Amino acid sequence: MLKVAVVGASGYSGAELVRLLANHPEVKVVAATSETFAGKKLREVYPGLGSAGDILLTTLAQTELTPRKVEAVFLALPHGEAQTVAPGLLATGLKVIDLSGDFRFADTAIYEKWYQRKHTAKDWAGKAVYGFPELFRSRLAGAQLVANPGCYVTGAVLALFPLLKAGWAAPDSLIVDAKSGWTGAGRKAQTENMFTQAAENVSPYKMAGIHQHIPEMEQALAQATGQAVRLTFSPQMVPARRGILTTAYARLLQPRTSETLAALVQETYREEPFLTVLGSGASWPELVAAVGSNQCVVKAAVDANTGLAVVVSAIDNLIKGAAGMAIQNLNLMFGLPETSGLPGAGFAL
Amino acid sequence: MLKVAVVGASGYSGAELVRLLANHPEVKVVAATSETFAGKKLREVYPGLGSAGDILLTTLAQTELTPRKVEAVFLALPHGEAQTVAPGLLATGLKVIDLSGDFRFADTAIYEKWYQRKHTAKDWAGKAVYGFPELFRSRLAGAQLVANPGCYVTGAVLALFPLLKAGWAAPDSLIVDAKSGWTGAGRKAQTENMFTQAAENVSPYKMAGIHQHIPEMEQALAQATGQAVRLTFSPQMVPARRGILTTAYARLLQPRTSETLAALVQETYREEPFLTVLGSGASWPELVAAVGSNQCVVKAAVDANTGLAVVVSAIDNLIKGAAGMAIQNLNLMFGLPETSGLPGAGFAL
Amino acid sequence: MLKVAVVGASGYSGAELVRLLANHPEVKVVAATSETFAGKKLREVYPGLGSAGDILLTTLAQTELTPRKVEAVFLALPHGEAQTVAPGLLATGLKVIDLSGDFRFADTAIYEKWYQRKHTAKDWAGKAVYGFPELFRSRLAGAQLVANPGCYVTGAVLALFPLLKAGWAAPDSLIVDAKSGWTGAGRKAQTENMFTQAAENVSPYKMAGIHQHIPEMEQALAQATGQAVRLTFSPQMVPARRGILTTAYARLLQPRTSETLAALVQETYREEPFLTVLGSGASWPELVAAVGSNQCVVKAAVDANTGLAVVVSAIDNLIKGAAGMAIQNLNLMFGLPETSGLPGAGFAL
Amino acid sequence: MLKVAVVGASGYSGAELVRLLANHPEVKVVAATSETFAGKKLREVYPGLGSAGDILLTTLAQTELTPRKVEAVFLALPHGEAQTVAPGLLATGLKVIDLSGDFRFADTAIYEKWYQRKHTAKDWAGKAVYGFPELFRSRLAGAQLVANPGCYVTGAVLALFPLLKAGWAAPDSLIVDAKSGWTGAGRKAQTENMFTQAAENVSPYKMAGIHQHIPEMEQALAQATGQAVRLTFSPQMVPARRGILTTAYARLLQPRTSETLAALVQETYREEPFLTVLGSGASWPELVAAVGSNQCVVKAAVDANTGLAVVVSAIDNLIKGAAGMAIQNLNLMFGLPETSGLPGAGFAL
Repeated sequence: MLKVAVVGASGYSGAELVRLLANHPEVKVVAATSETFAGKKLREVYPGLGSAGDILLTTLAQTELTPRKVEAVFLALPHGEAQTVAPGLLATGLKVIDLSGDFRFADTAIYEKWYQRKHTAKDWAGKAVYGFPELFRSRLAGAQLVANPGCYVTGAVLALFPLLKAGWAAPDSLIVDAKSGWTGAGRKAQTENMFTQAAENVSPYKMAGIHQHIPEMEQALAQATGQAVRLTFSPQMVPARRGILTTAYARLLQPRTSETLAALVQETYREEPFLTVLGSGASWPELVAAVGSNQCVVKAAVDANTGLAVVVSAIDNLIKGAAGMAIQNLNLMFGLPETSGLPGAGFAL
Repeated sequence: MLKVAVVGASGYSGAELVRLLANHPEVKVVAATSETFAGKKLREVYPGLGSAGDILLTTLAQTELTPRKVEAVFLALPHGEAQTVAPGLLATGLKVIDLSGDFRFADTAIYEKWYQRKHTAKDWAGKAVYGFPELFRSRLAGAQLVANPGCYVTGAVLALFPLLKAGWAAPDSLIVDAKSGWTGAGRKAQTENMFTQAAENVSPYKMAGIHQHIPEMEQALAQATGQAVRLTFSPQMVPARRGILTTAYARLLQPRTSETLAALVQETYREEPFLTVLGSGASWPELVAAVGSNQCVVKAAVDANTGLAVVVSAIDNLIKGAAGMAIQNLNLMFGLPETSGLPGAGFAL
Repeated sequence: MLKVAVVGASGYSGAELVRLLANHPEVKVVAATSETFAGKKLREVYPGLGSAGDILLTTLAQTELTPRKVEAVFLALPHGEAQTVAPGLLATGLKVIDLSGDFRFADTAIYEKWYQRKHTAKDWAGKAVYGFPELFRSRLAGAQLVANPGCYVTGAVLALFPLLKAGWAAPDSLIVDAKSGWTGAGRKAQTENMFTQAAENVSPYKMAGIHQHIPEMEQALAQATGQAVRLTFSPQMVPARRGILTTAYARLLQPRTSETLAALVQETYREEPFLTVLGSGASWPELVAAVGSNQCVVKAAVDANTGLAVVVSAIDNLIKGAAGMAIQNLNLMFGLPETSGLPGAGFAL
Repeated sequence: MLKVAVVGASGYSGAELVRLLANHPEVKVVAATSETFAGKKLREVYPGLGSAGDILLTTLAQTELTPRKVEAVFLALPHGEAQTVAPGLLATGLKVIDLSGDFRFADTAIYEKWYQRKHTAKDWAGKAVYGFPELFRSRLAGAQLVANPGCYVTGAVLALFPLLKAGWAAPDSLIVDAKSGWTGAGRKAQTENMFTQAAENVSPYKMAGIHQHIPEMEQALAQATGQAVRLTFSPQMVPARRGILTTAYARLLQPRTSETLAALVQETYREEPFLTVLGSGASWPELVAAVGSNQCVVKAAVDANTGLAVVVSAIDNLIKGAAGMAIQNLNLMFGLPETSGLPGAGFAL
């Protein structure tokens, strides 16, 4: 059994890691940290976790994270904190999978501009592997530091990648209109994420070119398809707990039919274990089709009125958009079967 | 007091008409029909209506709708039924406000194509006035038959009209990504609109150029701005009861700043009683900002990353998107104050 | 026009007062205070308020609250704060309606025990009138200080009062099982009231005899019916924004039928403008039947299996359970029509 | 691998059986029937099922259900249909687990009275074993026909059983106030279960002694504790998809403390794998603590104001209240580990 630790286990992504890893046949969580809830079991914070939450939470300071105890560490910390914790762990030789934005940019100037904070571990940022298996699977085997993608990025990139890879879409014409459940905003109570404010509501925020996931989407698509990419991104909160439904638009360089577009996406993802590509006759993906599993459900079509490509993707933001993707990366880093421990099915509802 | 009737009063738009008109100081609802619930009071169908629902529902056949009894009739019937009912009423000289799609196209070939049904009252379709005060206010005084706009159309047109009117946006570059609450799907129980299927879900449908509101959006914007318009429309259901949040995108023909764009929208709607235009420093409109009132809340900005215009509008689909707009039209038809009986405020939450 | 002030206008009850009073034909809100949002308009805090939210918020310190400026003051402050503010206002001769628990007990020892804080205005507690028109209407005319009831208390008392008044129910057998929407928990963000924690959840809290509304329910029913009352109270949060549905149980001292019980309730409330009593053949009250209006909807029946009395009441916690009741009290204090400015109808949905 | 069939696999309980059994290490679903969706894969009906929904649905008539093909059959059919299907299956020697109410009463007169329909398989009703492991575990080994309990029954019985078993509670004093998510109402679209009617609402129904689960609760508790039991039951729908939160009340025959009551419940369920009993210092169970798992979470206390026992239980109505309980029964019938294939943890949220 591969022994791992989860740092920041009481946040939504961290708790989801612990929950999913409880079903991983080849991994065991031997430590889980939380500064706020140290001394409690995780199930006291999340009663629904039941037996999967029996692990005792400890502070990071009181937790020995060395190769003697664990082989890999997941960092599920707020942006800015991972860069202070990771270098020490990496120096001991441990493998680290970071779920924050801290190591997603080799060029830390991009990070410093969009996250509006200093980067204090620039060397490691340069060495990190961007953990997006569908785009860069081969880089993961043996990687020491993996930067897990942002949740919005995962939904947007999986929607647009096939069209850009094939050279069908104008890379400066992209629009990503995303609808996210509220776990995406984290577990810190704020007026906006109160039930009374969020129920029966839809809330756009960080619109019109200022959300920090924009450069990450552009970088991932550019590196994977070899062309400069420019996109408009609209993040919007909807009254659901989990999931991101992404509606992406792209101008096609030549006229295409919905059938050929659907076939392109199906072909692109033919070998992918976590992509469910719907045909042109199917209904559009709905959010619940992805919630609870590591699947991304995608459908593409050509707009009959305008000829634009319209692609919808659905993911569970805490699984394919965070903890599930991180486990998929772990599997690849350690040579385990890529799908090991990852749910292929969610709830029926 | 102006005496009016509501035909189809047990549907969501019809009940909303009765509810709003109970507060109209110059109008009295003297008849309300429902084939399903005839013999009951409306409050038995909608207990929340309280005293506003005391009216007895009757079948259309047993209801005398003539100038002797009423001066105007609202038709809140399914598409296809209004065209069978309206001609008889109009022949008696009554004024009619139709909330269905039946009389929105002078060219009934467009109707027949997009609604996939025959039109049997083509003469009246040619004479109907399209009831969109912000675009065509002057046409309403004295009109006999008014076609009330579709709910999605109202949100989309109010978002895009200022940019097109000013000639700032490329009229073939428009994208309308709309998120609608479930009252928009009507009161007929179906698997899709069950709580168990709709809660915690987001559901795209009739995507990629097939929704019947597309030609209406294009027609309204074209007639109001004097240019051919072509748009991509994505209707998507979110887990809310009321409201449509519309995110619209347009390519600007020349570079603009967010400030000038916001100023353009403010200037365009300066005299409008039901437009709340937010400045470039304000938060983006959220759905609850419009729910419960006849207001449309709008904000426009230029995407800092791509230069695209991004416009968000929020309306209550049953008020500004249906019953409220119909009352606004009634007021204009009969020379009443345009805002009479219409709520300028919703719930705080 | 009666000039009033709302102290604590940015909380849910305070904002609801401002919203409702905007439609009151004989009252004008001339000041609204908020320590947190002073300097903003109320509509900046609650965009949905629209035109009803145009009032500028000021701090209490900078607001002149004297008979020169206003005639009555609503206090919508947290428990414990009202008792520090009220005495100064009362000393100037102003009339005060307090929505907190501070002045609901003439015997402040009860307050100090259940609210677990000192009482610093015991004289005024002894002089306050408990503002529950359906029980003590005659006390309100001319009262200077009125203590508005707790939200749970209103739903429970209106359900149980007729049975106890008639001497039909055993006064030591009462159980009140209440389901409340989340506005009942106020506007302070906490982990429990986050959307992610509250959606799809039901949360009992302060169960088994510790909620501070228990002595108030017992006191109100005892004073109104002349017998000692003892009850079990279960407060439980449900995923709704507004409303309290109360299911009350009582042992009947003699066997009764559902018909006679329903008739008793109807007779008791025959003259009440804000009680909708359903007959034994009607469906049970649902929450939405009361949301948006000042109505309490009630139905009583005898359990066919056990002979127990079962009474369900539905109220809007922010209206009949807080701001609406306060305005009803204001109307009675100043000799205005009791129903003035109060919504008799809510949304259809 | 034990080969089983699910009859009625497109309903909520049937689909949940297929979903859960996909993770059962010793069971394989070899047939799944649906009259409505025959010819489709289950994942076309429930896209969220992903790989767990790959099974092809067939009509019952075209499905061979004999010992040659399967060893056990789950019947997830509406009340009244199971009794027409079960006898033929049982005659071939197959084992049957019925999730409907058809075989829960040896005395079919009770069934006929409360379900208001004829019983046509009375012999089998007399031979069926009531499948409630926590009460009657020893009866299950080798049973041929097992009647799975009703969802409300499971929550109520697990809350009240310890108090009655110990002889602490007056068996004629019981009240069960249950709050259910909407999957409990099945998958048939009706006005009441539309999102627009159910969201932001709480709906009591079949109150005051007429719900068909009452005699089943009374029978189960009476048989398990050896005394006549009489209870008041209040079923109420809340805006959640899954789960039942049950608040039960009982008069204690002698004064008890919360600590001794909690200890009694803990002792009673000490060996039970699917009961999570909370101590007197813990928070009350919330619905999400049980959703997604086969656990029932229980807490009991004595009301400090009245001395009444108050017990709250939370279950997932589709798992512990239906499909999970059925699998637990299957495990016991076939001598498999009782917990095999059953989720001990749900979602964190």
